[in-house]
Amino acid sequence: MNETSPTTQAGDLVQLVSPSNKVYLLRLKPGEKLETHRGVLAHDDLIGVPWGAQVFTHKGSLYFLLQPTLNDILREIKRNTQIMYPKDIGFVLMSLNIAPGQVVVEAGTGSGALTTALAWAVGPTGQVISYEAREPMHNLARKNLERLGFLERVTLKLRDISLGFDETGVDALFLDVPNPYDYMAQARRALKLGGFFGCILPTTNQVERLLPVLHQHYFAFVEVCEILLLYYKPVYDRLRPTDRMVAHTGYLIFARPVAPHERSAQAEPATLGGEPEGEPDVDDSEA
Amino acid sequence: MNETSPTTQAGDLVQLVSPSNKVYLLRLKPGEKLETHRGVLAHDDLIGVPWGAQVFTHKGSLYFLLQPTLNDILREIKRNTQIMYPKDIGFVLMSLNIAPGQVVVEAGTGSGALTTALAWAVGPTGQVISYEAREPMHNLARKNLERLGFLERVTLKLRDISLGFDETGVDALFLDVPNPYDYMAQARRALKLGGFFGCILPTTNQVERLLPVLHQHYFAFVEVCEILLLYYKPVYDRLRPTDRMVAHTGYLIFARPVAPHERSAQAEPATLGGEPEGEPDVDDSEA
Amino acid sequence: MNETSPTTQAGDLVQLVSPSNKVYLLRLKPGEKLETHRGVLAHDDLIGVPWGAQVFTHKGSLYFLLQPTLNDILREIKRNTQIMYPKDIGFVLMSLNIAPGQVVVEAGTGSGALTTALAWAVGPTGQVISYEAREPMHNLARKNLERLGFLERVTLKLRDISLGFDETGVDALFLDVPNPYDYMAQARRALKLGGFFGCILPTTNQVERLLPVLHQHYFAFVEVCEILLLYYKPVYDRLRPTDRMVAHTGYLIFARPVAPHERSAQAEPATLGGEPEGEPDVDDSEA
Amino acid sequence: MNETSPTTQAGDLVQLVSPSNKVYLLRLKPGEKLETHRGVLAHDDLIGVPWGAQVFTHKGSLYFLLQPTLNDILREIKRNTQIMYPKDIGFVLMSLNIAPGQVVVEAGTGSGALTTALAWAVGPTGQVISYEAREPMHNLARKNLERLGFLERVTLKLRDISLGFDETGVDALFLDVPNPYDYMAQARRALKLGGFFGCILPTTNQVERLLPVLHQHYFAFVEVCEILLLYYKPVYDRLRPTDRMVAHTGYLIFARPVAPHERSAQAEPATLGGEPEGEPDVDDSEA
Repeated sequence: MNETSPTTQAGDLVQLVSPSNKVYLLRLKPGEKLETHRGVLAHDDLIGVPWGAQVFTHKGSLYFLLQPTLNDILREIKRNTQIMYPKDIGFVLMSLNIAPGQVVVEAGTGSGALTTALAWAVGPTGQVISYEAREPMHNLARKNLERLGFLERVTLKLRDISLGFDETGVDALFLDVPNPYDYMAQARRALKLGGFFGCILPTTNQVERLLPVLHQHYFAFVEVCEILLLYYKPVYDRLRPTDRMVAHTGYLIFARPVAPHERSAQAEPATLGGEPEGEPDVDDSEA
Repeated sequence: MNETSPTTQAGDLVQLVSPSNKVYLLRLKPGEKLETHRGVLAHDDLIGVPWGAQVFTHKGSLYFLLQPTLNDILREIKRNTQIMYPKDIGFVLMSLNIAPGQVVVEAGTGSGALTTALAWAVGPTGQVISYEAREPMHNLARKNLERLGFLERVTLKLRDISLGFDETGVDALFLDVPNPYDYMAQARRALKLGGFFGCILPTTNQVERLLPVLHQHYFAFVEVCEILLLYYKPVYDRLRPTDRMVAHTGYLIFARPVAPHERSAQAEPATLGGEPEGEPDVDDSEA
Repeated sequence: MNETSPTTQAGDLVQLVSPSNKVYLLRLKPGEKLETHRGVLAHDDLIGVPWGAQVFTHKGSLYFLLQPTLNDILREIKRNTQIMYPKDIGFVLMSLNIAPGQVVVEAGTGSGALTTALAWAVGPTGQVISYEAREPMHNLARKNLERLGFLERVTLKLRDISLGFDETGVDALFLDVPNPYDYMAQARRALKLGGFFGCILPTTNQVERLLPVLHQHYFAFVEVCEILLLYYKPVYDRLRPTDRMVAHTGYLIFARPVAPHERSAQAEPATLGGEPEGEPDVDDSEA
Repeated sequence: MNETSPTTQAGDLVQLVSPSNKVYLLRLKPGEKLETHRGVLAHDDLIGVPWGAQVFTHKGSLYFLLQPTLNDILREIKRNTQIMYPKDIGFVLMSLNIAPGQVVVEAGTGSGALTTALAWAVGPTGQVISYEAREPMHNLARKNLERLGFLERVTLKLRDISLGFDETGVDALFLDVPNPYDYMAQARRALKLGGFFGCILPTTNQVERLLPVLHQHYFAFVEVCEILLLYYKPVYDRLRPTDRMVAHTGYLIFARPVAPHERSAQAEPATLGGEPEGEPDVDDSEA
């Protein structure tokens, strides 16, 4: 994964894309064959080839040989269960401040889509610990992450998080569960002060229920937002948005655990962070 | 940067946030002092403190001592020039498939905001090369990146990109210039086949002008999109979106250089990638 | 109002607009004068003039003499209180199926903005009955409607609607009050079966509270929606959306009272109307 | 149409809706029968029935008998051709300032959807003149309007509008044609000064091409906008937007013909109207 060699190598995860956008995702293994609906390709013919090159089946059908993107990989995982969308994942990674080398905790694992994105972003020197209470999902995620070559930077735990997280002092923690309000004490214990908490919730009722619990557990800088992604038809002389779009995946909520207020009882932790739209009144003296 | 220690250390970049959301960004240096409008803080009192802790000025005013986020840093850089918004940057990082360890080229540097985000995402093992033709901007970006401690993973070049890029085989290239259509030959030479090209353009006219040029230079999998970020007021019993929002920053365009079509003249590179909204018909045999 | 004569007449409501978009709204009265910040205009010089003509102050400053639009009028009323936006009003008129000649009930009157729009749409042969419990607002609305010449088609009632509406069999009823869930029995008694109910609510909490009450009172075909209006800068060679936009005014809720289900206990009145996004499976035999 | 009697009468246009949202639109005629896929209903059993009542087929299947809304009617017309959406029509009626009794011109007629909405809004005392160059569409629209009982307030003309409109001094004119920029001289001659022009265009290229032509023909107060309509699932304890939505139908452009500037050459008619988002600086002296 994250290959940067100019040509493909045995063991690489590659993507074959036809001009009509038929996509195959596979890991190159000497001696194996890929059977497409437009003919057969030998893996050996796909090894040592420049990324982006054209390759042809035994019937002469064209495919582009491409490095698969994180998006491509997530789309495929998507086939198994409802997963987070790229539009949301990109903003979550930013908002949780994920960087190479960090330690991040997540629950539930689900099919491992966000786990994959987190593993991608923390890189080989980082670590993702992902909890899941349902054994079939836990096993599915393990299979998905193994195939992507990410198991070294991911620890999958089969555990109900009401029992708490093993970790403390983690940089960021994301809950993709329907009832995050039941786990905020656990989340707070796992996170370092000033760390980053995030979750995604599909309904307004869930958001309303979470907000006071964040407050109770001294999470501040609370933000609730939603990302909309509008695609355009890429036609230069008839430029226009697509006819339809995804209207809703979920509300994203972010917050940071802070030390309990001792002296400033009047402050309102739940709304610290103030108006997200406005420009914060930033001052930097020297630095 | 990217500090993961539980307590602050000399040299750390930290953020002080008041309950009313007044923000200070500073690098901790023994012996120095920060003068806020609500009293003075000695850096020495801020070193060795747990992240997220409360600290107090000599007048007793409360601040939270926090690890600054990439967002915080970008917001501050923003004061200097028009820069890309976090909503766009998160999606750009995803769409350019940026991962730790990669080599990424960018132009123009501007004040270094996207440079910072790219440097953040490629991590200490990656490399960002950023071109800028205007010397004052080049110098400003250098100052910003130096202060953030990112100069080791960033190379700033003072150069007009019409002269071409020095690099070849790069993983990703982003153009934040008003006329990307003038540099697509140069961009193609710098990128490896199957690499990732992106740019941001504020007007529809620019998008219309770019699309055929992408086509001419065999960029395929073209996507044109826009990200909208809607914030909610985080009040549990009066949940509602904010009154106003950012309606437009720019159109994001992504594409990938592919090998010229030799045999399938009928294929349309510019629209390869097809309907972005639909689910690609993904097939994986083994993998 | 609704003047269709090609030239202005005494008594007409007119709008003067400067090239820099300074707007004056006034009713033409022989002998009167308008003092603008760029000079004086005699009403007599504005009577008998073609709509759309240029007129000039005694200092030679240009104004366009225009028929004021409903939007213009609503904008002005807006100065007094928070009122509904044109983006919402247009859709409300459509969704309540308002047509010339209808009888429509509204509460609360507020400053009379929606009252004005309803009076506009039902025309001189229709009737709007508007309830308001607060005497100052009631009086303000009367003044606004009198000035617009709409009092003949509007009946303003100073009354708390918890006491019920005097009317029955009305075509449409709109509640612009914070607690519509307290008045659904009253609303049902006023509306004819199959009539149209609508309201606007700023928070998700209010919408959640209203929905089951609609159900209890046999309102079906429930729709909850929100209108976003995105403006573009009208510059032909730099076309782009405006930088900022209104993100939220309120959620619009529509429903229709139907006869209580006697035989089909399994049906769910609250969701009758089904998927608003999909195309209804419409069949017409003959017609 | 626009029936306000409490019970149905022979000749009324009615809608039958099943609990599963199967919809039939029909005009009641004594002696006729409606065959649904769940049984037969005699028109005679549907005449003299209260609006909103339950009716049953010979097999005992339930339908609600409802007054059809303008939306319902437009949806049905939609089956024939691409027509304007209710979200756009409501805003167009507002922006063109349509009121009972007005004279409005439209081209092209298409299947008569916007014609229907305009006829609805101008009422029996108004007049809609609609031009169409394609005879089959002209005939289809006539059939649709006849069935709705709207032919008395609509004049359908089979004519290429490049030849000009017969009318002058009209209140409002709407062009639903792909090339409105070719007809702005004709539109200007038909409209009274200060009247209302509108059109809908699907692509940015068309908008860019129209804007300078509006300028050339002294149309001012130009607005370009787009309406987004977001539906929520009306479920009180799981409130959330629908998964998908209509992302684009067309850009709406509005403008008003004004007298040519004689003395103020520096003014820019095309942008008169200024910032649509801001509040106009409205002043009213007396009025």
